[in-house]
Amino acid sequence: MKKFNIPKGTQDLNSYEINKRNFLIKIIKKKFTLFGYSPIETPSFENKSTLYGKYGEESENLMFDIFNSGTFLKQTKKYSLIKFIEKYNNKVNNNSFKNKLVNIFSNKTLRYDLTVPFIRYIYMYKNQICFPFKRYQIQPVWRAENPQKGRLREFYQCDVDIASKLYSLWEEIELIQLCDEIFKELNIPIIIYINHISILKGLLEISGIKKILWKDFIISLDKYNKIGKKLVIKEIIKKGISLKYFENINFILDRELHFSDKKNILKKKLKFSKYGYDGIKDISFIYNMIKNISLKNTKLIWDLSLARGINYYTNIIWEIVPFYKNKKNFLSIGGGGRYNKLPSLFGMKNIYSVGCSLGLDRIYYFMDKNNLFNNIIINNLQILFINFGDEESLYAYKIIKILRDNKISSYLYPNNNTKISKQFKYASKNNIPFVIIIGKKEIQKKIIKVKYILNKTEKKYKNINDFIKTFK
Amino acid sequence: MKKFNIPKGTQDLNSYEINKRNFLIKIIKKKFTLFGYSPIETPSFENKSTLYGKYGEESENLMFDIFNSGTFLKQTKKYSLIKFIEKYNNKVNNNSFKNKLVNIFSNKTLRYDLTVPFIRYIYMYKNQICFPFKRYQIQPVWRAENPQKGRLREFYQCDVDIASKLYSLWEEIELIQLCDEIFKELNIPIIIYINHISILKGLLEISGIKKILWKDFIISLDKYNKIGKKLVIKEIIKKGISLKYFENINFILDRELHFSDKKNILKKKLKFSKYGYDGIKDISFIYNMIKNISLKNTKLIWDLSLARGINYYTNIIWEIVPFYKNKKNFLSIGGGGRYNKLPSLFGMKNIYSVGCSLGLDRIYYFMDKNNLFNNIIINNLQILFINFGDEESLYAYKIIKILRDNKISSYLYPNNNTKISKQFKYASKNNIPFVIIIGKKEIQKKIIKVKYILNKTEKKYKNINDFIKTFK
Repeated sequence: MKKFNIPKGTQDLNSYEINKRNFLIKIIKKKFTLFGYSPIETPSFENKSTLYGKYGEESENLMFDIFNSGTFLKQTKKYSLIKFIEKYNNKVNNNSFKNKLVNIFSNKTLRYDLTVPFIRYIYMYKNQICFPFKRYQIQPVWRAENPQKGRLREFYQCDVDIASKLYSLWEEIELIQLCDEIFKELNIPIIIYINHISILKGLLEISGIKKILWKDFIISLDKYNKIGKKLVIKEIIKKGISLKYFENINFILDRELHFSDKKNILKKKLKFSKYGYDGIKDISFIYNMIKNISLKNTKLIWDLSLARGINYYTNIIWEIVPFYKNKKNFLSIGGGGRYNKLPSLFGMKNIYSVGCSLGLDRIYYFMDKNNLFNNIIINNLQILFINFGDEESLYAYKIIKILRDNKISSYLYPNNNTKISKQFKYASKNNIPFVIIIGKKEIQKKIIKVKYILNKTEKKYKNINDFIKTFK
Repeated sequence: MKKFNIPKGTQDLNSYEINKRNFLIKIIKKKFTLFGYSPIETPSFENKSTLYGKYGEESENLMFDIFNSGTFLKQTKKYSLIKFIEKYNNKVNNNSFKNKLVNIFSNKTLRYDLTVPFIRYIYMYKNQICFPFKRYQIQPVWRAENPQKGRLREFYQCDVDIASKLYSLWEEIELIQLCDEIFKELNIPIIIYINHISILKGLLEISGIKKILWKDFIISLDKYNKIGKKLVIKEIIKKGISLKYFENINFILDRELHFSDKKNILKKKLKFSKYGYDGIKDISFIYNMIKNISLKNTKLIWDLSLARGINYYTNIIWEIVPFYKNKKNFLSIGGGGRYNKLPSLFGMKNIYSVGCSLGLDRIYYFMDKNNLFNNIIINNLQILFINFGDEESLYAYKIIKILRDNKISSYLYPNNNTKISKQFKYASKNNIPFVIIIGKKEIQKKIIKVKYILNKTEKKYKNINDFIKTFK
């Protein structure tokens, strides 16, 4: 017999896990709503033309493509792979053909994130939408990453975004405050590391490194405050990048420097950068306003090595990590930023967009590990009826109906050939607190016999309404 | 500029639609719980070996396969399609190779229903599960069908199933009662058409038709009470099946015959069928018990032409159609049945299983068309603050914080370059009932000016707590 399993990087959830997840989702939704965001949902897959060309090549390599139709490779009568190979075999070394190849097989791709579908949604409904458009979306996304703890191939994102016709930094401020509120309610103190793509570009400029190496260099820089300076240097050397570029900007990468010191140093250093100045202005504005409003549960730290999606984000970026029991943590549980360029890839030049994404599975994993889910009810079932046979079952069913009409969850043990003792065992294994016993004797006497599983006491009632009264 | 759209058979949902859907899901979940079912969730895709060979060939042609990995067709360095074609081109006319072909490209498939994943779940966790295992699952499934009204390629199913170690017809009775309860609460009277696979097989036997034609014949039979006798005859002729087979069983297909008449006729006719007798016994038991319990909102009708998944179901089957305003409807909104064979395909020989699936999108579509969603709140946002500039915004933000702490949804209009009149328009377009106006003057006077959008009245409050008191 072959063995059955689930695909790597995916997970099954049992009732207990779903209850905990729902607890989490409920809080997140409540806060999203409190801040004025409304839900939308989009399909699990999008046309390839919607997703490709938006995230950069590395991300495209992680996308899950779907075969063009269910029958495409299965029916020999139709345009099949076989015929395809016969027809095109002489062209396989032609490069433009290679690019076409994938599209002939597949024109749909599983959602990679919720942001591009959000902008596609705005593109399609822009005439109905009232801007600024504030939406939230809680749905799964799929990435062909190498699975590890806290990293899945199917995982849920909880996104809030604002699309506006004008650029306002108050949107960033609100999103940061929203993150603060959510993690406050979840009892997880957090650090939000913040940076600005323009400042990052300014630093790259003053490092002297060629533009073609920016991406490689920045991937290493981003690890500065995570894996430490030594390992970053090692990585840079391994990549064959000259260390002098790193040394040119090393002076400012440490997170521990005070905000105003960083600002003053950078103001001088980025004087001649065509990028830097606006970035410093933006980040100072946000920092000052938030200082005035004051966050409940969050440390806001300017991390000049933070580099999220430089292809994608255009201004402020941030990353959220737990700061639980004053322990630093490197597992990012969310992040956000402004991506003003993306709408223009959909032909919309007057739309500004900023948003934040929380990793539901990461937060769940963190809370579970730290026992932060308290008192979650695992089973709502309250009463089990012992099954003595068809005649008694029919009698029981009439009582069950009354209980359910009174919103009391209850059911008959379905198999009437099971020993009574086994039925009782089933109740205790499933945490069902009450068992009702109505055999021939009880029917004759017109009584309701109830056993309370936890303390093994038994009580008789004249009728079901008497029991319901006591029960409630 | 190219146009962006969503794949055919998929849908976007806006806030209003999501609110209506959530209303529906909430009721379904509540009833599932009341009847003692607990939730599980499974991954969106399963290994092909899990899904294939379970549903029959027609269904397999509708499955969406996923490319083996994100990089499979994208990286030329890896084992690519090009190399594959070069290597195997001489084998394309080999039949066993054709079968292998698909697997080389793809080993994962999007979930086609929730039943096979349920049995796979039991297979994997059978040692932790306590039987009878009662689970519900509300998740999307994907089928490459030709989209039409009420038929999508991505749609949600709401499934309840019981897996037991013994066979009990009380499980079917409970499931039928559960359907009755749900549609009662949704205010949709329904008809449940019921039949039994064994009786269907008995009828096929006495029709005299060869086993090889059963499937084709049954697909047409199933339409007898939907498109009518004439069209069924036409279809049978078109398929090249002799009409005599149909005429041999035509006498019993009409739904309108009384239950006991059908039973008496069939008892005689199926006397020599190796299948029929047990089926009649089962269906009579269910019919009698349900008559005794009595349903609230449902007509139970024995439809001898009803034929759902003869490859899949093994005993009782049923189908749910709305019977709204006494109008017959042919749009099935759910169905169920017993599938005792499926667990054995996973190597489990002592598991009996029965379940019911409700089509969330079909029910939604029906309710929406008939205006059955009443008083669904579209927007929870209650207060908008006018944005006069950064200084006033900071002041406003402190008040917003107090409001949110009091669970009142509110936010600042994010752009401070927008005309005040436009900000007011935004509030009314978004159904936001209150607008708070705090400009320089109001800050100086320390007052809160509130405009009630609906009746255009204005009121001043001494402080925010005064307003909150009145508001609540």
